[in-house]
Amino acid sequence: SFSRGVKTVTMIPGDGIGPEISAAVMKIFEAAKAPITWEERNVTAIKGPGGRWMIPPDAKESMDRSKIGLKGPLKTPIAAGHPSMNLLLRKTFDLYANVRPCVSIEGYKTPYTDVNLVTIRENTEGEYSGIEHMIVDGVVQSIKLITENASRRIAEYAFEYARNNKRTSVTAVHKANIMRMSDGLFLRKCREVAENYKDIKFTEMYLDTVCLNMVQDPTQFDVLVMPNLYGDILSDLCAGLIGGLGVTPSGNIGANGVAIFESVHGTAPDIAGMDLANPTALLLSAVMMLRHMGLHDHADKIQTACFDTIRDKKVLTKDLGGSAKCSEFTAEICRRVQDLG
Amino acid sequence: SFSRGVKTVTMIPGDGIGPEISAAVMKIFEAAKAPITWEERNVTAIKGPGGRWMIPPDAKESMDRSKIGLKGPLKTPIAAGHPSMNLLLRKTFDLYANVRPCVSIEGYKTPYTDVNLVTIRENTEGEYSGIEHMIVDGVVQSIKLITENASRRIAEYAFEYARNNKRTSVTAVHKANIMRMSDGLFLRKCREVAENYKDIKFTEMYLDTVCLNMVQDPTQFDVLVMPNLYGDILSDLCAGLIGGLGVTPSGNIGANGVAIFESVHGTAPDIAGMDLANPTALLLSAVMMLRHMGLHDHADKIQTACFDTIRDKKVLTKDLGGSAKCSEFTAEICRRVQDLG
Ligand SMILES: CC(C)[C@H](C(=O)O)[C@@H](O)C(=O)O
Ligand SMILES: CC(C)[C@H](C(=O)O)[C@@H](O)C(=O)O
Repeated sequence: SFSRGVKTVTMIPGDGIGPEISAAVMKIFEAAKAPITWEERNVTAIKGPGGRWMIPPDAKESMDRSKIGLKGPLKTPIAAGHPSMNLLLRKTFDLYANVRPCVSIEGYKTPYTDVNLVTIRENTEGEYSGIEHMIVDGVVQSIKLITENASRRIAEYAFEYARNNKRTSVTAVHKANIMRMSDGLFLRKCREVAENYKDIKFTEMYLDTVCLNMVQDPTQFDVLVMPNLYGDILSDLCAGLIGGLGVTPSGNIGANGVAIFESVHGTAPDIAGMDLANPTALLLSAVMMLRHMGLHDHADKIQTACFDTIRDKKVLTKDLGGSAKCSEFTAEICRRVQDLG
Repeated sequence: SFSRGVKTVTMIPGDGIGPEISAAVMKIFEAAKAPITWEERNVTAIKGPGGRWMIPPDAKESMDRSKIGLKGPLKTPIAAGHPSMNLLLRKTFDLYANVRPCVSIEGYKTPYTDVNLVTIRENTEGEYSGIEHMIVDGVVQSIKLITENASRRIAEYAFEYARNNKRTSVTAVHKANIMRMSDGLFLRKCREVAENYKDIKFTEMYLDTVCLNMVQDPTQFDVLVMPNLYGDILSDLCAGLIGGLGVTPSGNIGANGVAIFESVHGTAPDIAGMDLANPTALLLSAVMMLRHMGLHDHADKIQTACFDTIRDKKVLTKDLGGSAKCSEFTAEICRRVQDLG
């Protein structure tokens, strides 16, 4: 099982500030004596046989073996015609659930306090089907594809997640008043799955209503589950509530136990290599990863050290309102991790 | 022209609290000596020839003549199989632009200050095409339809609006990285139209990025233009920033000079008939209507009286944090309107 022995994790440092922040995470993991060995891989797409874009075989092979990846930001698409790496990774490993816990960080001021919710986004279909046509000149259609299987799978994931993480409610987010068949199917599957989780409260809400209520009082939400595009929107909106992509972790859960955890901010080329980057989002993603692997003690220790450092306000990177270098912020977290024993 | 003589407006009081709040608006208009006569009509859909849903002929006839409507909330759909009145009205009068100015109200506390933006939503196509199919059992598709004509029309409306309302920038909101053809077409039209408005700054932004930035700092936005569903979401999100649907005006602009202004909150059946409703959203929608008709002096006077009443905090309805009845709140605004001369 995940919790015994040293586990291998595929590390995808990424571009721009990626190498710096992944080095920071690895340092903190070392300080925490997390039983992890890293296998560093580059995933930037290459053209495979038949001209199809694919991730390099050694990266694919590492992920297939380790099942768990930690990924920094990727410069993507690197050129015209190059695929979105996010989409390619989702497809390659059938990463069907994007999970984003959005929890207010004490000491990091935003207009909101006590946010504590999780967005769970269907990651494989919906508006992201990629099927589009020009019907006649000047008339274009895009197809949103919703399937029973993918809807049931994401609903089941959401309820399992809620149960395993001691959460009490799941809200299905939809526009089934407009897209009666597609969002209707998604919603029906959520309702069916809810029947099997009587311990979790189930509610349904229109996407527009969720957005309105979210900015007025986000504390009313717990776990939210939704089709792909709505998740794209809501996950970023919710990240904004707690301080943005620099402090928000993200996990992509796939079939067969595969999962990739990642920071979803950009590569910040303007500060790359200058020891100024903030590793928090990647670190908190790595904490999610530890929990996913059952390594709760290590997760707790690292999370506490990170949040204590932020609450303390003495050693913060520039984007967090301080003047510390990435290495100083990292060292401070390491020190606290070690103090925690 | 609109600004000379007494003009007829079709008043659609609506259901629930609709009659109370429209009575309040008419009272305030009287106090302001607005040169308007009202023609009250019921628009609840009826089955026409061939079994198609339509709005009653006398309501249609009134709107065709007056060109301008003011509408309270409608209980909709009133029963299974009954159409959404919002969608039916949009269709009947080709109301292609939904316009929502979201401006912070002094004295009404929300987590944000100095919000001052306008969402302009394409109201006729996109994800609201209503075209859906079941491909095979368990696989459903919904079609998002984007046309060159509707995209150009809404882009032109947005830039004209910006120019006529002394606004300086228009942001096109899209997901053309995912829906390359449909959102791509929308975006291309925005770019083309922008060429003709060199006095207005044009930017493009992903919907997810807009949502994230919006909750972090809404003051960076001015006029936003977008396809139907994105507008549905963003207009409600932005309403949330300034206090919700109870204080947010809305206008639907159609072809051939037709326009319907409306409050977008619900019918609040729990307090209907109890003299407790807040008429602000409908009143501010009526102010938008006056401006649309060129009656700026009357618009200014009523808006000032309304905002002064809210800032003063002495006579407020319950939802605004006070204990006044709808009639008392209305009387207070009338008094201030008269004081303004
Ligand atoms: C980069 C883009 C393909 C992606 C998306 O739209 O899904 C991004 O916004 C995300 O959320 O990962
Ligand atoms: C009631 C519904 C049809 C409508 C929509 O989704 O457009 C509503 O949310 C709106 O914004 O007017």
